[in-house]
Amino acid sequence: MMHHHRSEDESRLERGRRALAEIDGEAGEKVVAALADIAPDFAAYVIEFPFGDIYCRPGLDLRAREIATIAALTAMGNAVPQLKVHIAAGLNVGLSREEITEIIMQMSVYAGFPAALNGLFAAKEVFAQRSAAEEVG
Amino acid sequence: MMHHHRSEDESRLERGRRALAEIDGEAGEKVVAALADIAPDFAAYVIEFPFGDIYCRPGLDLRAREIATIAALTAMGNAVPQLKVHIAAGLNVGLSREEITEIIMQMSVYAGFPAALNGLFAAKEVFAQRSAAEEVG
Amino acid sequence: MMHHHRSEDESRLERGRRALAEIDGEAGEKVVAALADIAPDFAAYVIEFPFGDIYCRPGLDLRAREIATIAALTAMGNAVPQLKVHIAAGLNVGLSREEITEIIMQMSVYAGFPAALNGLFAAKEVFAQRSAAEEVG
Amino acid sequence: MMHHHRSEDESRLERGRRALAEIDGEAGEKVVAALADIAPDFAAYVIEFPFGDIYCRPGLDLRAREIATIAALTAMGNAVPQLKVHIAAGLNVGLSREEITEIIMQMSVYAGFPAALNGLFAAKEVFAQRSAAEEVG
Amino acid sequence: MMHHHRSEDESRLERGRRALAEIDGEAGEKVVAALADIAPDFAAYVIEFPFGDIYCRPGLDLRAREIATIAALTAMGNAVPQLKVHIAAGLNVGLSREEITEIIMQMSVYAGFPAALNGLFAAKEVFAQRSAAEEVG
Amino acid sequence: MMHHHRSEDESRLERGRRALAEIDGEAGEKVVAALADIAPDFAAYVIEFPFGDIYCRPGLDLRAREIATIAALTAMGNAVPQLKVHIAAGLNVGLSREEITEIIMQMSVYAGFPAALNGLFAAKEVFAQRSAAEEVG
Repeated sequence: MMHHHRSEDESRLERGRRALAEIDGEAGEKVVAALADIAPDFAAYVIEFPFGDIYCRPGLDLRAREIATIAALTAMGNAVPQLKVHIAAGLNVGLSREEITEIIMQMSVYAGFPAALNGLFAAKEVFAQRSAAEEVG
Repeated sequence: MMHHHRSEDESRLERGRRALAEIDGEAGEKVVAALADIAPDFAAYVIEFPFGDIYCRPGLDLRAREIATIAALTAMGNAVPQLKVHIAAGLNVGLSREEITEIIMQMSVYAGFPAALNGLFAAKEVFAQRSAAEEVG
Repeated sequence: MMHHHRSEDESRLERGRRALAEIDGEAGEKVVAALADIAPDFAAYVIEFPFGDIYCRPGLDLRAREIATIAALTAMGNAVPQLKVHIAAGLNVGLSREEITEIIMQMSVYAGFPAALNGLFAAKEVFAQRSAAEEVG
Repeated sequence: MMHHHRSEDESRLERGRRALAEIDGEAGEKVVAALADIAPDFAAYVIEFPFGDIYCRPGLDLRAREIATIAALTAMGNAVPQLKVHIAAGLNVGLSREEITEIIMQMSVYAGFPAALNGLFAAKEVFAQRSAAEEVG
Repeated sequence: MMHHHRSEDESRLERGRRALAEIDGEAGEKVVAALADIAPDFAAYVIEFPFGDIYCRPGLDLRAREIATIAALTAMGNAVPQLKVHIAAGLNVGLSREEITEIIMQMSVYAGFPAALNGLFAAKEVFAQRSAAEEVG
Repeated sequence: MMHHHRSEDESRLERGRRALAEIDGEAGEKVVAALADIAPDFAAYVIEFPFGDIYCRPGLDLRAREIATIAALTAMGNAVPQLKVHIAAGLNVGLSREEITEIIMQMSVYAGFPAALNGLFAAKEVFAQRSAAEEVG
C-alpha cells in the first residue's frame, strides 16, 4: 500500500500511531482512513512527521502543544475541521473547556473577532458532542 | 490626550498597564510611545483590551497565554515585530528557550516550513539580544 | 453572568449595544445570544470594543466604516458569516446594493478573483434575504 | 447588459470565452451565469483578465498554469469552490489524478498539513464526480 | 514592447494611465517603471485592469474606493509597500489623515492588533514623508 | 547533535541532502547552517520531510514541483526569503526566467496584484544575482 515507505521508517510510523491515538483518538483514525483511497502515502506522512517526529519530542508537554495548535488554527481561520479535531484533542490531553475557551478568546487580539467567534462556535460544537457522548456512555 | 476615554475606564487602563509591563517589559512601552503622535487613543486600546481585559483574565495562566500567542503569530507569518515582542514576553513569563523553539517548530505542521523557519530566525535574534543584555548586565 | 465586567464598564457596554443594534440589527443580537452559554464574557467584549469603542468614534462615519469592513472581510476570505452580517449592516447604514457590489468587485485587485467571487455570492444571498423580507413586510 | 465594456474589448472577451471553455468547461459557464443578476460586468472581467489576458499568454502551457493554480488555491485554503473548479480544469488540460494528488500533498510543506488535507478531500470529491460522470457517459 | 496587447486595448490603457496618475501620482509611475525590464506586459495589466477597468467604474467614488483598499491591505498584512502607496493615494483623493487613521485602527477588530499596529506605523511613515515634502514645497 | 533522530532515519536524511543540494544548491545549505545553533533537529526535519520524502517522490517531476512551490509562496505573500530560494531552485531544475515570470504574474488572478508585484520584485532580485554570478563565473 504505502509503497514508498521503507521498512526502516516503521518505528516513526509506530511511534506516530501511538501518539495519534493518544492525542486525537478516533478523529485521527478517521482522517487516516479517509486518505486511504486517494493518498495512502500522505496518511503515513500525517502520522510520521506531525505525530512521530514533532508531538513525541521532549521539551514541551502535550498540554502545551495543544494550546499552541488550537491557537494557531483559530488564528488562521481556514481549517475548521482540523481545529475541531484539536479542540477535542485538547480535552483528551487534559485542557479544560474553560482553558480552551480562553485560548480561543485571546485570538481576537491577534487575528480579529471573526476568527475568535468562529473558533468559539467550533468549540461549542465539540463540547456539545462530548457532552452527548458522555451522557450516552 | 486620549480624550475619548472616560474616567470610568481608568482602572482597565491601569490594570492593563501593569499587565503590559509584566509581560512585555520595555518593548510594550516602546510600542505605546510610538503611537503617541499618530493614534494616542489606539495606544490606550492596545493596553485596555488585550492586556486590561484578556491577559488579566483568570482561567489561563500567562505561560499558557504566551504559548498561544507565539504559536499564532508564527503561523500567521505576517507580524514579525509582534512575534519578537512575544518571544521576549514568553521568556519574561517563564518559558524556556527550548520550549519557545519547540512551539515554533511545531508550527511547521500547521502553517508550513517557511512560517516555522521565519519564526525560528526571529527567536534566534531575540535570544541573541537577551544573551547580549545579560552579559552586559 | 459576565462576572469579570465591573459596573464602571457599563456605559461602554450600553453605548456598544446601541451601536450594535443600529448597525447589525438582529444579526448582532443573534451572535451575542449564541455566545451566552460558551463565552458570555466574550459576548460583552464583542459589544464593548468593536461597537462601544471603535464604531462610536467620531472621525469616520458608519457608511465609511462599513465600506472598510466589507472590503477587509472579503479580502481575508475566511469569515463568510461575519461578511454576510456586515453586508447587511452596510445596507442598514445606507450603502446601496450597487455600492456594496462595487466594493467586493474591487477586492479582485487586492485579494484575487476567488475572494471577490465568494464575496459576491455572499452578497447575492444577503440581498435575496433582504428582498424576501421586504416582500413579506 | 455589460454596459461598461466597449466594443473594442470584444476580442479579449471572445478569446477569454474560448480559453474558459477549454480549461474550466461547464464549471466556468456556471460561475459566469451565477454572476448574471448581481454583477454582470464582473462576469466579463472574470473572462477577460484571467482567461483572455493571462491563460492565453505564450510562455507557459496550460498544464503548467493549472499546476500553479492548484498549488496556490490549496495553499491559500480559503477558496474551496475555486480549488475544485481548477482540480477539474487540471484534468481537462492533461494532468493525471496522481499528479494533482502530488501537487496538493506537496503543499503540506509550504502551507501546513491542514491545507494539504483539505485540498486532498476536495480532489477526492472532484475525482469521484468525474468517475461517476464517466460511468454514466 | 508590450507585444501581447493589441491596439484595440489602447483606450483601457489610456484611461487607466489617467486614473493611476490621479490616484497614485508618482508612486504608481515608479511601480510601472520597476516592471519595465522584468514584466512589461504586467505593467500594462496593472494599469488596465485595476485602474482602467475597476477604479474608473461609476457606482463608487474614489474616496470610497481608497477606504476599501486601505482597509483590505491593512487587514491582509502582507503587502506593506502597496499599503503605503494607497495611504498616499487616500490623501490624494481627499481622505484626511484622521480618517485614514480611523480606518486602520478599525482593522484591529477584523484582523487583530498586530495588523492594525503595522498599518498605523506604515501611515506614520507616509504622513511624515508628506509633511516633509510639503515643507520643502 | 540531532539526538532525537535514530540511525534508521539516516537514509531519509541522506536522500534529502542529495535532493536539497540538487534543487536549492548553496541556498539550502545556508538555511540548514543557520539553524545549527538554535534548532539542529529542525534542520534535519527540513531535509527529511520536504526533500527526503516529498520532492523525491515519483509522480511529479522537479520542474512541476517548483512551479507549484513558486506559485504557492507568491500567493501566500508572507515568506519572501523562501520564495527567493525557490525562484533560484526553479532556475536550477530547468525553468526559464520567462516561465517563472509567467507563474508569478498568474498569481495576480488568485491572490491579487500586490502578491504578484512583490513576487516579481523578488524574481527581479534573484535574476540579477544570477546574472552577476554568471558574469563573474
